[in-house]
Order: sequence, then structure tokens, then C-alpha cells
Amino acid sequence: MKTLTVVKVGGKILSDPEKLEVFLLQFSRIQGSKILVHGGGNKATQLADQLGVQTQMINGRRITSKEMVDVIAMTYAGLINKKVVTSLQKLHVNALGLSGADGNIILCKKRPVGKIDYGFAGDIESINASTLQVFLGGGLVPVICPLTHDGNGQLLNTNADTIAESISSAFSEQFSVRLIYAFEYGGVMRDIDDPSSVIERVDTSSLETMKADKIISEGMIPKIYNAMKAKDSGVQEVYISGYNIIDQPQKGTQIWI
Amino acid sequence: MKTLTVVKVGGKILSDPEKLEVFLLQFSRIQGSKILVHGGGNKATQLADQLGVQTQMINGRRITSKEMVDVIAMTYAGLINKKVVTSLQKLHVNALGLSGADGNIILCKKRPVGKIDYGFAGDIESINASTLQVFLGGGLVPVICPLTHDGNGQLLNTNADTIAESISSAFSEQFSVRLIYAFEYGGVMRDIDDPSSVIERVDTSSLETMKADKIISEGMIPKIYNAMKAKDSGVQEVYISGYNIIDQPQKGTQIWI
Repeated sequence: MKTLTVVKVGGKILSDPEKLEVFLLQFSRIQGSKILVHGGGNKATQLADQLGVQTQMINGRRITSKEMVDVIAMTYAGLINKKVVTSLQKLHVNALGLSGADGNIILCKKRPVGKIDYGFAGDIESINASTLQVFLGGGLVPVICPLTHDGNGQLLNTNADTIAESISSAFSEQFSVRLIYAFEYGGVMRDIDDPSSVIERVDTSSLETMKADKIISEGMIPKIYNAMKAKDSGVQEVYISGYNIIDQPQKGTQIWI
Repeated sequence: MKTLTVVKVGGKILSDPEKLEVFLLQFSRIQGSKILVHGGGNKATQLADQLGVQTQMINGRRITSKEMVDVIAMTYAGLINKKVVTSLQKLHVNALGLSGADGNIILCKKRPVGKIDYGFAGDIESINASTLQVFLGGGLVPVICPLTHDGNGQLLNTNADTIAESISSAFSEQFSVRLIYAFEYGGVMRDIDDPSSVIERVDTSSLETMKADKIISEGMIPKIYNAMKAKDSGVQEVYISGYNIIDQPQKGTQIWI
């Protein structure tokens, strides 16, 4: 079975030129088919501030107004995606920047309004694996930003961790998939201030213990759930690992269910 | 021989929602392989103003500062490209938004500094027709914005008319190519205020006469030269035509050499 590596990288690495360079160089060295999913984070907030567009967050989640969709299109699909693609091209990686609308690769549904109205947030309906395979078959490396669409002309904001999980799951039958959530720490940490405290392995039962003991932070929990969902869908290997060790993600935290 | 239609559309149509809708509906009805190249124009200038980035133009050409490259990435590759792609997806066209860096489809060289320093302006070195054919073969419709790269990590600003010409020329051996420059007038006009004054045909000798008689405006001359260059490179049919008659570009102006 052929291998596919899916790497997700977040805003804190993207907005630090030195870390981004280290990360992209490591990414360029990954052999076989690969896909990069990137977040955006504070760049969108910065641009929104400059344009006088209000940023509203509830429980760490962005409320996406109509004006914020434009800001996200500009920063995620424009500025960040094209800078990453151009940097990878320099490293001889034939990167192809994509939003979910491009080639209809990620079709979403606007999140229904419940207790909270998230605005133009998109929940994933389907991943178009056959079009992604056209790209992989052509030797291209998809670089996906967290901007999707509803098939009816509306752009939507979708969580990049979830996109990485859904794409990995969609390919888990045709490929042996390795999914890596790369970030600024070495892995899931027992003590965020102690680099040697990387937890080697997290599974459903250890997660419950760690949650009860408050070892892991609030922000880490949805990331671990996404990772477990991928594992549950048949993704062979899932890691939460340092941006500078993606060639050896085993040094980070491996996720099991 | 299979047919390929390449349409270039400019900023004045893109920034008018009603005209854009008419244009995209007509574009969606074109049969066979097709590529859309779009400009950007005043959206970049608007955003630059909002962000306090100075816009400098010399003889109608943008001087692209480092900050302006970012503005162009945000507007051309981000906002405009993704809105066009999403609108085409709604019309069941499997659009794929691309800058020249994506899949390395357009490799450029920074324009050498002569009398004028154009900044980060890119002159086309090569079109990667084989990667574009991977997309066309996969039933995708490339939607290309005028942002390119130099292969060494630098994004560059490249004229959209020139991109449309270069792509058409690159495909002129494998396809019977029809290139349409679509804009707000019905074609090259003898009298800009008289819609019935569309000139049926322009060739090298009639162009010289029209230039001498000052029938055509300054802005139209480089567009006609681009069109003639395509014709000279073997592109079968080249038109300058109305955005609302791209299904019958013969009603506009056909370009010959």
C-alpha cells in the first residue's frame, strides 16, 4: 500500500518566519505523497483590526461575519497560502494551493444556528478524494487553507484540524496514512514548561485520566479528539508532534483509541 | 484537434456584481476545455488605501512594492479568485483557482530595473503546460490570477492580458485554441460612445492606420499587441469582445496579423 503523509500546521508556526522555514524544510524532505493543511490564526485578526472589522470569539472559536469571510479569504487563501506555496516551490516541492472550493475538494454546510450563531462557519459534508488523487497522481503537493464553500456560492470558515482529520480519513482505504498535527511543542506535554515531559502515547482511557487530573489544557482537547476521530476512521498513524521533528513524529505523542 | 477556450476578464467586470454574474453564466456554458484568467485592478488599490500602502502607477502600470505584493496576494489570489471559483462551482463548473506559483504553472523573472523600476513585476519565463493538462484532463477549469513567482520564493505581479496570451500560445500545438479578451465594450470600438461601431477585424496594417488616425485609445494598444502575439504564436482564433457575448465572440473584434 502506498503511503500518504498529511501534516497540519498552525498559525503560531506560520507567523514565525524562522520556525516556518525549519518546518517547510522538514516537510520538503518527506518522501511519497503528501498534503499540507495550514491554519491562519492571528493574521486574520490583525488584518480585521486594520480594516476595522470586528473579531468576535466565543470559547476560542471565531464567529465568522460576512466581512470576516472576506478577511479570511484574503489572509488564508491569499497571503498565507501563496507564501507557503512559493516557499515550497523554492524547496522543489511542487505545491498546489487550494481552498475547499477549488476543485470542490471540501464541500461544507453552514453550521446551523443553535445556542451560538457561528456565522459563516462550515461543517464538512464531503471530501472529494478523487480530485485530490488527480493532484497527487500528477506529482503535486496540495497545500490546503481552512476556507471552504457550500456549493451554493458561499465561502465558509472551517477548522484546519478538522480538515486534516477528514482528508486523512477519506484516504485511509487507498493509502497507508500518517497524520501529523505539528505545533510549537514537542507533543502533548505533561508540563508545558518542561520540554522533556512529552507524553509518548495518548489513548481514550489515558485521555480521560489526564482530563480528570487537568494535565492537558482546554485547547489541546479538541485537537486530541480530532486525532482520535482519524484513528477511529482507520488512519494508520496519528501524531501530535513538534514542527521541527515531523520527520520523526514518533518523538512526539502518538494517538490511539 | 480538441478545442480549448481561454478567456481573460478584467477588473471592471469583476468589481460589478451584475456584470460578473452575466459573464460567469456565459463562461459556464462554454463547451470543452476552458481556462479563465482574471485581472484585479481597483480592488488592490482599494485595499492598499485602507492599509495605508501607497499605490504608484507609471503610464498605467503598477509599481509593485514589497507591501503591494502582499496586497495583491490578498486581493487577486485571495478575495477575487476565491469568489470567482465559488461562483463557478455554484454554476457546476469545477473551477480550480491558481496563481502562477501553484503547480509552478507560470515561472517568471523579476523585471530588470531600467529607466523605470517596476518593483516586483514578473515577466513570464515559461508556462507549465503539462501540469495545466493534468488539471484539464481531470475535468477541472483553471481560474488563474495575475500573481506569479520566480521559483526562488518571491511572489511577482504579472499582467493578466500577457498571462492569457502566453497560456494560449503554450497550448496552440496540442489544441485548437480560441482566446477571448472579454471586457465592458462590445469589441474594439471606432467610437467608444457608439455601441454599433465595433470594428469587425483588426490586423497589423489596420492597427497602424487606426493608431495614426488616433481611433483607438492608449489602453487598447497593449491589449491588441498581446492579442496579435497570440495569433503570431499559432493561436487559432483571437477576439477582443464584450463580457456578455463570449459565447459569440465573432460579434466582437477578431484579431489577425
